Amino acid sequence: MLNRADVVIIGGSAAGATAAISCRRRYPDKKVILVRKEEQVLVPCGIPYIFGTLGSPMKNLIPDKLLHDNDINVVVDTAQQINKERKVVHTDGGQDIEYDKLIIATGANPLALPIPGSEKENVFVIEKDIAYLQNMLDEVNKAKDIVIIGGGFIGAEFADECKKNRDNNVTIVERLPHCLQLAFDDEFCIEAEKMLNDRGVKIITNQTIVEILGDKKVSAVRLSDGRELRADVVIGSIGVRPDVELAEKSGIFINPATNSVEVDRYQRVINSQDIFACGDCAVKISYFSGRPSKTWLASVATEEARVAAANLFGVCYAGFWTLGVFSTQIGELAICAAGLTERQANQEGYNTVIGSAKATSKHPGSLPGSSPTSVKLVFSKCNGIILGGEVSGDTCAGELINVISACIQNRMTACAISTFQMGTHPMLCASPIAYEIVNAAEEAFIKLK
Amino acid sequence: MLNRADVVIIGGSAAGATAAISCRRRYPDKKVILVRKEEQVLVPCGIPYIFGTLGSPMKNLIPDKLLHDNDINVVVDTAQQINKERKVVHTDGGQDIEYDKLIIATGANPLALPIPGSEKENVFVIEKDIAYLQNMLDEVNKAKDIVIIGGGFIGAEFADECKKNRDNNVTIVERLPHCLQLAFDDEFCIEAEKMLNDRGVKIITNQTIVEILGDKKVSAVRLSDGRELRADVVIGSIGVRPDVELAEKSGIFINPATNSVEVDRYQRVINSQDIFACGDCAVKISYFSGRPSKTWLASVATEEARVAAANLFGVCYAGFWTLGVFSTQIGELAICAAGLTERQANQEGYNTVIGSAKATSKHPGSLPGSSPTSVKLVFSKCNGIILGGEVSGDTCAGELINVISACIQNRMTACAISTFQMGTHPMLCASPIAYEIVNAAEEAFIKLK
Repeated sequence: MLNRADVVIIGGSAAGATAAISCRRRYPDKKVILVRKEEQVLVPCGIPYIFGTLGSPMKNLIPDKLLHDNDINVVVDTAQQINKERKVVHTDGGQDIEYDKLIIATGANPLALPIPGSEKENVFVIEKDIAYLQNMLDEVNKAKDIVIIGGGFIGAEFADECKKNRDNNVTIVERLPHCLQLAFDDEFCIEAEKMLNDRGVKIITNQTIVEILGDKKVSAVRLSDGRELRADVVIGSIGVRPDVELAEKSGIFINPATNSVEVDRYQRVINSQDIFACGDCAVKISYFSGRPSKTWLASVATEEARVAAANLFGVCYAGFWTLGVFSTQIGELAICAAGLTERQANQEGYNTVIGSAKATSKHPGSLPGSSPTSVKLVFSKCNGIILGGEVSGDTCAGELINVISACIQNRMTACAISTFQMGTHPMLCASPIAYEIVNAAEEAFIKLK
Repeated sequence: MLNRADVVIIGGSAAGATAAISCRRRYPDKKVILVRKEEQVLVPCGIPYIFGTLGSPMKNLIPDKLLHDNDINVVVDTAQQINKERKVVHTDGGQDIEYDKLIIATGANPLALPIPGSEKENVFVIEKDIAYLQNMLDEVNKAKDIVIIGGGFIGAEFADECKKNRDNNVTIVERLPHCLQLAFDDEFCIEAEKMLNDRGVKIITNQTIVEILGDKKVSAVRLSDGRELRADVVIGSIGVRPDVELAEKSGIFINPATNSVEVDRYQRVINSQDIFACGDCAVKISYFSGRPSKTWLASVATEEARVAAANLFGVCYAGFWTLGVFSTQIGELAICAAGLTERQANQEGYNTVIGSAKATSKHPGSLPGSSPTSVKLVFSKCNGIILGGEVSGDTCAGELINVISACIQNRMTACAISTFQMGTHPMLCASPIAYEIVNAAEEAFIKLK
């Protein structure tokens, strides 16, 4: 049995796997052990798609081939305690694994529903557990009435997927005025809500659920305005909470304000050169404000994992802090955001200037499959630098938002983006005359003058 | 009849239309006249798609609504002469149009085939002319054997489109070892050629056509190795030549080395504060070398048009020079390039370091519609700065290349790109673990150390 490695990684999801692969690339001679609880690891962002498009949790796995090809030793066991002095990880299975460098990537757990009755059968949260999700899928398949609590990304995606190929009633209950409101300005939320409605999803906003009703099994939910909704299945998607249990009981500093492992820009935990944390369990700091941020994204987790791996045996580089690039798709509509929305920027205290543009996703618009796209860019009025952007459109919106992210990371101004050198092609992009990012930036630049 | 405007623009394609719209945005009170030869303007990059996907030149038009909505006066007439002293444009139709500021956007014309027999019937080049293209389409529809001379973007796209819904033989004859070789490194050329072959297109490389045979009408072509190929239709796509006739006869300086209107970084012609040129007729300067470049792209044309418009009444900003971002799609495969290929970079004199990555376009790869994507990035060895990138994949490659373009425009290093903050979503992008640009940059960064 393996009992020593140069690098031990705890956690097998996006952060852990990326840290392992990046470590292997950088240090070909180091022995790497990845300790994880799961025999097979789910693609975290793919979980909603189990319920419609994929049809099974087994079709939503991160392939272990990635780890095997990179000569990563996988230990399936639960890390119970880290002994920092002896540099050993103790596992539930009784293993003691010595490390030279340790990366903690224990992720996050779904928030439990703080609602009376949430212990009833058929009330689910989004556990990253194959058996749990298979049972949830079986119940969703049988359900006539499904209530989803929380209209964020996961709630909206679950709603869309739970409608697929089923004759059922799916209702989202959202406490804010709009679904997806924490990530988008109102106009994009409304576009997403319209698409959800078109797909047959009912949306109730400005309401919370005060009680889950039923005997052993859920039968209905009661809203804050007193209405009751029938429910055979309730899906709670109200957020996640960093899983810091192992770190905490091992004496690693957890910032109580964030309930996250405190790390520096090298992803090192406080007072250690040998222990790193990355992914959802590690604190996120906003690129804009320098304050803690609730940006628990797989993409951010993997970036932190690469930074941690690079810095294992001597600092190589500091991370960028967290920008936040969000994407989703409802029906055929992709909506995506990077950086600050207009609302968020104003809340931060920025004076903002907005540029917007609409186009068709192919040109001429008569090409088959062409669909409308919309871009909104947010700039700081005092210096013209881009703060954020939002996009709606077809699947290419998923990379268009990354163009915007590149602009943000490079602190580009409206002026510079208005002469951005893009490539365009009839079948792949908007026309160069109408190219959305450039036109939105030009509009903002002219307003700024 | 209108005979005076604050701004007169000559040319109605991508550069002219963009200059007009940008001018309107910046100077709401200025009167703008756009003079163009064509009653209706074709989308230049859309021309190949007339021959398959669209089925008619009339489905490939730039909508005049854009101009009307922006209160641009369109004069359909041919500019014959510019009188710089009197600041008047004379037209073939006998109009004299006075200007305060003039923008020349006369574009480019297809190169004639320098081959004996090219005057025969059914030997075509790519004229931006609706009647010409309709006749060409009619002949393509009747043809059994089509030979395309030149395997660049237009040749490859024509070949793909001419096969669609037709039982014919389409052969590309390319003088270089590979199709698309001026824009891509070999591995991407080979991928495109394989896709063309899969679509039923025959490719003959390392050969020129020495004679076009037939009586009145083409019947065959003779290759440089002596072989003859049957041909009912020959399509020449060997490049374009800036249309500088008007500028030249009006005494505007044409650089004989480039056969282009010489302009400064403000898009002003030499020795004038009042005359600008943009688009294919204006000189292109490489962002990398500072030397003239043959980057006649609609996207570059529109960037120059925006720069020209911004600088009309006082310099606002200098253009960026030409990076060159190319995209195409063959069958379902999009292939795209930005900046320098490895071959070009080495020819320039760079020592290069390459990073490559492959992924699937959705994650998990089991999602319907997921397809392989491939990214190659080229970095300068001496400073780690990105010089170029190439992508193959699905339609999202068209924006993925623009992410790379943003990295190039901001002189990002392999180090910086390896911690790029991208958004990823199962339905829209590669997995964050495998995200192509980041993984390619990480690979290069490690090699650089």
